[in-house]
Amino acid sequence: MASTNPARGTRDFLPADVRKREYVIGIIKEVYESYGFEPLETPAFENLETLTGKYGEEGGQLMFKILKRGEKLDISSASKVADLADLALRYDLTVPLARVIADNRNELPKFFKRYQIQPVWRADRPARGRYREFYQCDADQIGSSSELVEVELITAAAKIFDRLGFKDYVFRVNDRRRLSEMVTAASIDAALESDAMVALDKLDKVGKGGVLKELAERGITSDAAERFLAFALDADSAPRSESLSKIIDLLPMDIAVKDDPSLARGLSYYTGMIVEVNVPDLPGSLAGGGRYDGLIGMFGKEQIPACGISLGLERILVVMDERGMFPPEIADSTPADVLVTIWNEETTPESLRLAAELRASGLRVTVYPEADKLGKQMKYADSIKVPFVCVLGESEIEAGTATLKNMRTGGQTAAERGKIGQLIKEELSANS
Amino acid sequence: MASTNPARGTRDFLPADVRKREYVIGIIKEVYESYGFEPLETPAFENLETLTGKYGEEGGQLMFKILKRGEKLDISSASKVADLADLALRYDLTVPLARVIADNRNELPKFFKRYQIQPVWRADRPARGRYREFYQCDADQIGSSSELVEVELITAAAKIFDRLGFKDYVFRVNDRRRLSEMVTAASIDAALESDAMVALDKLDKVGKGGVLKELAERGITSDAAERFLAFALDADSAPRSESLSKIIDLLPMDIAVKDDPSLARGLSYYTGMIVEVNVPDLPGSLAGGGRYDGLIGMFGKEQIPACGISLGLERILVVMDERGMFPPEIADSTPADVLVTIWNEETTPESLRLAAELRASGLRVTVYPEADKLGKQMKYADSIKVPFVCVLGESEIEAGTATLKNMRTGGQTAAERGKIGQLIKEELSANS
Repeated sequence: MASTNPARGTRDFLPADVRKREYVIGIIKEVYESYGFEPLETPAFENLETLTGKYGEEGGQLMFKILKRGEKLDISSASKVADLADLALRYDLTVPLARVIADNRNELPKFFKRYQIQPVWRADRPARGRYREFYQCDADQIGSSSELVEVELITAAAKIFDRLGFKDYVFRVNDRRRLSEMVTAASIDAALESDAMVALDKLDKVGKGGVLKELAERGITSDAAERFLAFALDADSAPRSESLSKIIDLLPMDIAVKDDPSLARGLSYYTGMIVEVNVPDLPGSLAGGGRYDGLIGMFGKEQIPACGISLGLERILVVMDERGMFPPEIADSTPADVLVTIWNEETTPESLRLAAELRASGLRVTVYPEADKLGKQMKYADSIKVPFVCVLGESEIEAGTATLKNMRTGGQTAAERGKIGQLIKEELSANS
Repeated sequence: MASTNPARGTRDFLPADVRKREYVIGIIKEVYESYGFEPLETPAFENLETLTGKYGEEGGQLMFKILKRGEKLDISSASKVADLADLALRYDLTVPLARVIADNRNELPKFFKRYQIQPVWRADRPARGRYREFYQCDADQIGSSSELVEVELITAAAKIFDRLGFKDYVFRVNDRRRLSEMVTAASIDAALESDAMVALDKLDKVGKGGVLKELAERGITSDAAERFLAFALDADSAPRSESLSKIIDLLPMDIAVKDDPSLARGLSYYTGMIVEVNVPDLPGSLAGGGRYDGLIGMFGKEQIPACGISLGLERILVVMDERGMFPPEIADSTPADVLVTIWNEETTPESLRLAAELRASGLRVTVYPEADKLGKQMKYADSIKVPFVCVLGESEIEAGTATLKNMRTGGQTAAERGKIGQLIKEELSANS
């Protein structure tokens, strides 16, 4: 007998979970659309070569690779992964976007604004809030290097957090170019720049001491390391970034923004502004992003500027669940508005007709699947928390009525068939 | 330079494609919900053992398998696929559902009705309308062997096709138990039953002669084969199925149903009624399904009856595209309702405020990302087919107005800032 567990690090989403996910995704889509972003979807897997070398060393390790098929698979002469795998699961939504842009440059508008809400897969060690299958909700704008792009992306993301009910989020912003200047100003060898960034990126996790230790291990003198860290911890002493100042100035006053020279971000493809969104009760970030003006050029002849932000659906859901941020109609959703009972075999067609009538009036209607004792049908209705039950027996059919039971109040009324839908809708909206 | 193509047999969906897909998915969800089905989602990949042996020989060949990772992968001592792969991409939505039911039996209601709209992956040879990544839109009801389940599933699917605008679909129904009786009545050896089904399943593709030839190749005498095919081609001569008669009697009169003893269906897990939905201009089916009372028992201790239907999104889209069945707001969708221009650096904050005002009134607003010549901004607005442009220069800002240009009529008016949103909404709704 096979195991009934989902694969390690993945989850099944039962109806209550899906409704919460769809509520959040619905708001994200609505806001992205209101900012003129258009939907894009890409395949779950890409040719291995499309993803290889885009995410740094760790990315290569954590990618799920797909076994070659049929004659292409020659196990006996295989000596390395590339002999065995030709495809890999999507690792993020940015690299597939860059490929799509390069592939469709002539069909897409000069400034292309797309959003994409799809799962990505990483073979990371599963932990609390860290899964091997998780959704990213990205918005990116292609084709302009103007700071207005960053401003609109941050404003849209802030609007999403507002709409979801977050009040304590902060956008931390920095600039990769400024980080380079900090490296120079601290007299760190230019060859060690990426080492300095990798070490700084761990500040939240390992603290100041940890970063200094790693900087030392990576061959940076303690004087230079101290200077670099001093810049990172004090926005006033760090080199200024005109681009960043412009972005901060243009952002609406009511968005909490922190100029944070310690923000580094892990991915290697960023070239300008970088951003992360934090709330106090979550280690790690709710969203992150930045400008990546070099990535699309890796797929096409043309260098095309681009900038994007990515919202982490799973982390947003974790915080919203812990804080009880879902509206009641989502938190207490029911499988249907009303259950129609089945009296016996002869009355079944009439019960099906009643269900059709109630659906036509806009209700979600489930029909008990078998002729059975009324008590059992009521017990089932109770177990699925359906707010109304419609009983249709021979006497009701003859009278052109049905008995409507309100499962919350226990109240019961005989009502004309044609008026039941309206009755249920009124009581439902009075209750909400 | 890496290739910019998506992987073989997969597709990128640009905005116009996504909007069509979401329109169809939206209707499918709405109807499934109105019948009391609840949403479920499962991971893209399953443990290999979960899927192995559930789909017959072909299924095993066409499954995308995922390479083991890290220390688990030992290429040098691998001699077969099971040494190299531990996971596989979802091949359909039914087997994952059966696993979820067995895994959550105590948390789920006695009669569990779920829908699931997710992609599945098969390494089939790509052809017109046949992809390696494609969406299935399934509804299944678990826990009852009553024919009412089949009736509600077929009625819900018919409602979906109605809502999408199909008028010429036919539900072909048959019963696996009746096919067994046909095998017996034709004096075919019981041991050759599944051979007879496999051969009959190809009737649409290879015709009568082809089926007779394959029946002969599979060791069935020509007399028996002729009798078997005669039953398959004439519902009146074929053995009766009481269960099927009951289903057909209970279905609403306005659903076109054909009792078709030649319908066999490929998958091996069906045990009772089977169904397919056809339209004249598409080889193959728009939907298919059936009863599978034995599958869940393969994962748990308990045998639990189940029945489901699966709509093929890609085929529905192919037919709707060819027939021009999309409503104009989907077929001619635009990335935004209005574009706000940028006059110069000084006026930019005011343009952003105007965009925020228009969004607050419910419009989808895109902002030109750079201060540039007005002619270039207009040209861009034209290229993305946005219906309105809002020009905000220094004089407009001073006067508290903006210039609104209707890109379809070419008409231009100066309007009070506070009234522009309403103005655009009125013209948009007058146009639709």
